[in-house]
Amino acid sequence: MLHFATMPERLNIAVVGCGYWGPNLARNFHQLKTARLAVLCDADLARAQELAVFYAQARAVANYADVLADPTVTAVALATPARTHFELARRALESGKHVLVEKPLAMTGAQCEQLTALAAGRGLTLMVGHTFEYNPAVWKIKELIGAGHIGQLYYIYANRVNLGRVQSDINALWSIAPHDVSIVLYLLGAMPCEVSAHGAAFLTGGIEDVVFMTLAFPQNVLVHIQASWLDPSKTRRMTVVGSQRMIVYDDVDNESKIKIYDKGVYRKGDPAYGEFQYRVHSGDIHTPKIDMTEPLANECAHFVECALSGRPPRTDGASGGRTVRVLEAAQRSLDRHGETVMIQ
Amino acid sequence: MLHFATMPERLNIAVVGCGYWGPNLARNFHQLKTARLAVLCDADLARAQELAVFYAQARAVANYADVLADPTVTAVALATPARTHFELARRALESGKHVLVEKPLAMTGAQCEQLTALAAGRGLTLMVGHTFEYNPAVWKIKELIGAGHIGQLYYIYANRVNLGRVQSDINALWSIAPHDVSIVLYLLGAMPCEVSAHGAAFLTGGIEDVVFMTLAFPQNVLVHIQASWLDPSKTRRMTVVGSQRMIVYDDVDNESKIKIYDKGVYRKGDPAYGEFQYRVHSGDIHTPKIDMTEPLANECAHFVECALSGRPPRTDGASGGRTVRVLEAAQRSLDRHGETVMIQ
Amino acid sequence: MLHFATMPERLNIAVVGCGYWGPNLARNFHQLKTARLAVLCDADLARAQELAVFYAQARAVANYADVLADPTVTAVALATPARTHFELARRALESGKHVLVEKPLAMTGAQCEQLTALAAGRGLTLMVGHTFEYNPAVWKIKELIGAGHIGQLYYIYANRVNLGRVQSDINALWSIAPHDVSIVLYLLGAMPCEVSAHGAAFLTGGIEDVVFMTLAFPQNVLVHIQASWLDPSKTRRMTVVGSQRMIVYDDVDNESKIKIYDKGVYRKGDPAYGEFQYRVHSGDIHTPKIDMTEPLANECAHFVECALSGRPPRTDGASGGRTVRVLEAAQRSLDRHGETVMIQ
Amino acid sequence: MLHFATMPERLNIAVVGCGYWGPNLARNFHQLKTARLAVLCDADLARAQELAVFYAQARAVANYADVLADPTVTAVALATPARTHFELARRALESGKHVLVEKPLAMTGAQCEQLTALAAGRGLTLMVGHTFEYNPAVWKIKELIGAGHIGQLYYIYANRVNLGRVQSDINALWSIAPHDVSIVLYLLGAMPCEVSAHGAAFLTGGIEDVVFMTLAFPQNVLVHIQASWLDPSKTRRMTVVGSQRMIVYDDVDNESKIKIYDKGVYRKGDPAYGEFQYRVHSGDIHTPKIDMTEPLANECAHFVECALSGRPPRTDGASGGRTVRVLEAAQRSLDRHGETVMIQ
Repeated sequence: MLHFATMPERLNIAVVGCGYWGPNLARNFHQLKTARLAVLCDADLARAQELAVFYAQARAVANYADVLADPTVTAVALATPARTHFELARRALESGKHVLVEKPLAMTGAQCEQLTALAAGRGLTLMVGHTFEYNPAVWKIKELIGAGHIGQLYYIYANRVNLGRVQSDINALWSIAPHDVSIVLYLLGAMPCEVSAHGAAFLTGGIEDVVFMTLAFPQNVLVHIQASWLDPSKTRRMTVVGSQRMIVYDDVDNESKIKIYDKGVYRKGDPAYGEFQYRVHSGDIHTPKIDMTEPLANECAHFVECALSGRPPRTDGASGGRTVRVLEAAQRSLDRHGETVMIQ
Repeated sequence: MLHFATMPERLNIAVVGCGYWGPNLARNFHQLKTARLAVLCDADLARAQELAVFYAQARAVANYADVLADPTVTAVALATPARTHFELARRALESGKHVLVEKPLAMTGAQCEQLTALAAGRGLTLMVGHTFEYNPAVWKIKELIGAGHIGQLYYIYANRVNLGRVQSDINALWSIAPHDVSIVLYLLGAMPCEVSAHGAAFLTGGIEDVVFMTLAFPQNVLVHIQASWLDPSKTRRMTVVGSQRMIVYDDVDNESKIKIYDKGVYRKGDPAYGEFQYRVHSGDIHTPKIDMTEPLANECAHFVECALSGRPPRTDGASGGRTVRVLEAAQRSLDRHGETVMIQ
Repeated sequence: MLHFATMPERLNIAVVGCGYWGPNLARNFHQLKTARLAVLCDADLARAQELAVFYAQARAVANYADVLADPTVTAVALATPARTHFELARRALESGKHVLVEKPLAMTGAQCEQLTALAAGRGLTLMVGHTFEYNPAVWKIKELIGAGHIGQLYYIYANRVNLGRVQSDINALWSIAPHDVSIVLYLLGAMPCEVSAHGAAFLTGGIEDVVFMTLAFPQNVLVHIQASWLDPSKTRRMTVVGSQRMIVYDDVDNESKIKIYDKGVYRKGDPAYGEFQYRVHSGDIHTPKIDMTEPLANECAHFVECALSGRPPRTDGASGGRTVRVLEAAQRSLDRHGETVMIQ
Repeated sequence: MLHFATMPERLNIAVVGCGYWGPNLARNFHQLKTARLAVLCDADLARAQELAVFYAQARAVANYADVLADPTVTAVALATPARTHFELARRALESGKHVLVEKPLAMTGAQCEQLTALAAGRGLTLMVGHTFEYNPAVWKIKELIGAGHIGQLYYIYANRVNLGRVQSDINALWSIAPHDVSIVLYLLGAMPCEVSAHGAAFLTGGIEDVVFMTLAFPQNVLVHIQASWLDPSKTRRMTVVGSQRMIVYDDVDNESKIKIYDKGVYRKGDPAYGEFQYRVHSGDIHTPKIDMTEPLANECAHFVECALSGRPPRTDGASGGRTVRVLEAAQRSLDRHGETVMIQ
């Protein structure tokens, strides 16, 4: 009883950063019955004000300190540049606010651990916005792998490329690849042993526009990720190859987000004597119905629920830290010309 | 006059290896007015005989030595397993025959040099079957790059994957990637400085089913090649990204083999002061008409013409050697776990 | 000076009907600097209120008479069921309001004429929401035809099918086909001479779920339209075949809305002697860059501009009437089992 | 025993007409162990000779009478222009030869009956080359419909368009639509009650380049067929809409020839009171594995088997006649400007 009496009916949220992603957060929090969009904050006040036109109950502010000083604000959602995540999240937690941070959670594993400890110490919710871990299509793939539907998992490769969202402060690895890294860690439930990354910078010195990375996971599972913002075609595809079936997840295909191919290669004959042949099996193709709710809506609802109830979020600080540690190792590999970097 | 008098009217050819590719060579040589398909040779005589049913004038033989001993045979076309190429080509040249060798020309650069020297010493034609260098779509891309149509070339990536043609003697690097390596060397007219390759073997120990390789070329040009015979979808695509335009070459798209995207990213503002923004330009898409003659028909005709006239072939021993040296370096990288390998 | 003094700064608009289409109108009028979304009206008040949450300045009402009685409302936009269009538009005009009516303008040509006369008599703007006539892709096709780019126009066929938006008061002809009829009348700048329509009703007796109609235009131009809400795949495609080029307009293809095919058939030889052959020419394919602004935004802006300035709208009452007359004739053909119906 | 003793080991066949389709027949008969390709006949002898190069055992002749006079020839396969089918088939039957006739079997239903009677009277095999009735994808659709998998069949529409194979002696109805008419009659196992056809002639006076036809079948089943040789894109698609599922058969899609959509519309509420709503159900999409053998190979093998055994062919004279009667009625409708024509 007391529990319910003290539990606030709605989470009062400030969305910080009103550029590319912030408006999506605002829209989703606005539509939640469990949340109240209280503040829109952007260093460029005009941008916050422009967004506030659509949300009568939200006020626009320029100063982050004002947000943190406001006792009615109980949570902040950070949609600011990646390099600011750690500092802004740290200050929010120290001010007693729950925090949702856009991916990547921070720029180093150590920073992630610091934030995680801080949140734990204060009993606050720290969550990272790995949106694809709230995507029903990704859930479906996880379910299929877990149920043994594809047999032994061999390898996964992801292509996330487009023309657009060119950044000059972080490279394609930190801007685009966090999506695929977080999906893969989620699907495999394991950390890679090592990573090698290659890339090239064409537009801004030192900022790779395209990155190719290879991740070696335990049990001979290989993962390859291609990320680029300098590509003619928008592609968001992930291919999962198993011994018995293969899955193609095409995020821009509205009719068939997931296709399950009943395909595989079988050995015929006795390999011991070197006398065998490979036979290709190619059967049905199946597109399972997926109840597509908006991943960001799922994510926002989950954050609010965790903040209100104190339950640990699915994509907590540790989860954010795992993705960042992989990115950090990949960056080290990039810096060392593709050298293989071990991940502890 | 004398010239024509001494030039043989037709090249008498033996196709050696009647498995997967040999029948295509037989069909094409058969249709050439400048060639006569004289012999079909396969260690499995039944296979040669089965093919001979379609070519009344060709006789089926099992013994390669018989082919070489036959003075009426003036040229051999080798469509045998890659590991046999060097030995069979060497013997053919030593027997005074012109030789067309399927890709790869051999398994080491040294072998390629030896064959090249042998052919030169005897005044014989040695040609490697880099089929895509006889593909009008590839010619078109070369022409577009050469004319400066795409601006500065940034990077190229190729995906050549499928379910099928699983090999147990050579890996996907040697079986599939030679196509893309030869295309890229042809398009760029340069050798890469270094290569790094990652892969994994799932079906046969030590034989990689999937390979991802990165090639660094002079002038900061990056090339990435993905080759696999364990993939749900047949894909044969190459994307060429330039500063002003981008090209997608999709070999399995019958309507639009090549699409030229008038797309690019421009900097606005003064980078010296760090005050600039990127602007994306996205204009027309153009599919140029390509007069698609069959690449293999072009290749076969070219071989016959070179053998009859003594002219050097486009894909000569040196060309075959360059591709093999890249594959050799990539194999070394694979063996060393993706370590970057320099190419001299 | 006086002109500007008396011209209201903003058009005060009521959106009537808050079901499927009304929210789109509301959103677009809200974003216009020249309009003020004043009222959201729906017989189901809850629906109006739900929408009003997003527009602080708009009040929700259930009673249409209240809207008409409100002197601050100077224009109404009707997004109500087709069968109500005439009556609601008539009353609005009689109340001195400018009117934007969703397609179709009314259910008979006579009704359209009546509305047109009424608007003219009172000096009010009457406009029909033929959205595709505000679509830059359609403008581009009109421009290409007008410039003679495709040679002589032979025929056009349109496929507008989907699973969804099943209606029980009007059939697919009146619900879906108005789009294509209005596009075609716009592109050709002419009325068809006759029409024949076939269809079938599966879900509701007397309400055709699928309709196929053929329109004969002057100068031997043929048009065929397929409309269905009972189809597995969402398709919105129009193919324009000319003697020299052909255009495919695919509204759901984000990369290539329009493709221009340099294709045609030429006669070789002398037809007078019956001695000729047809030769097919198949050249480049071109996707022109189209600056895609949202058609509905263009439409709303145009309505506001016309209402404020008194300029005649592009899709005026006469335009709405032409489309309705074609639909009326098609309905008569449907009723008579596909019999050809002349259009005066 | 006696039976086998008198049954000829192989059927000696003459392929008549060596233009577009004849070479395909020749290739397929050549590959059959049960047939011997004995003669290639074409009024243009050079064409027959050119083809004969590939078939050592076949002789090229120009005179059809010579073929009929040859007692060693026991069957003829006619791949000549449609208007010659009846006369050539009649003569062949009268000469005691089994006959395979390309579609359409003849130009009138009466001609088909005459041929059928002739064949029956002489105990000869008369078969029409409705290739798609030998297509495993079409068999699969028939199986799905028959098993009730799609619920009640509502309607079917077919698009068979391309740029090419322009004819000047017969229109698109007779040249292209026979495929879809024969498929539909096979799938439905019924004749249409009436037909209406619209078309237009652009290239040759009186020869329609594009035809749209609507067929009304018993039990309110509607069929629509679009046929054109003047279209930018090669399309061969048939959509089958049922109350519970829908099937798309795309003959040019190599990965998914057939897609089964678990889609439909359900009524919720009581229609008696006019109080109900439609609900759309959209579930899985399934591509069943189809063992694709070449339809023409199946057809040729079936013809040979029937001729040798005396068994009645699946696509016998009656089947050919049904398709021709539909085409005849459609032609009458075309001639009468789309007037609905009853089919007895």
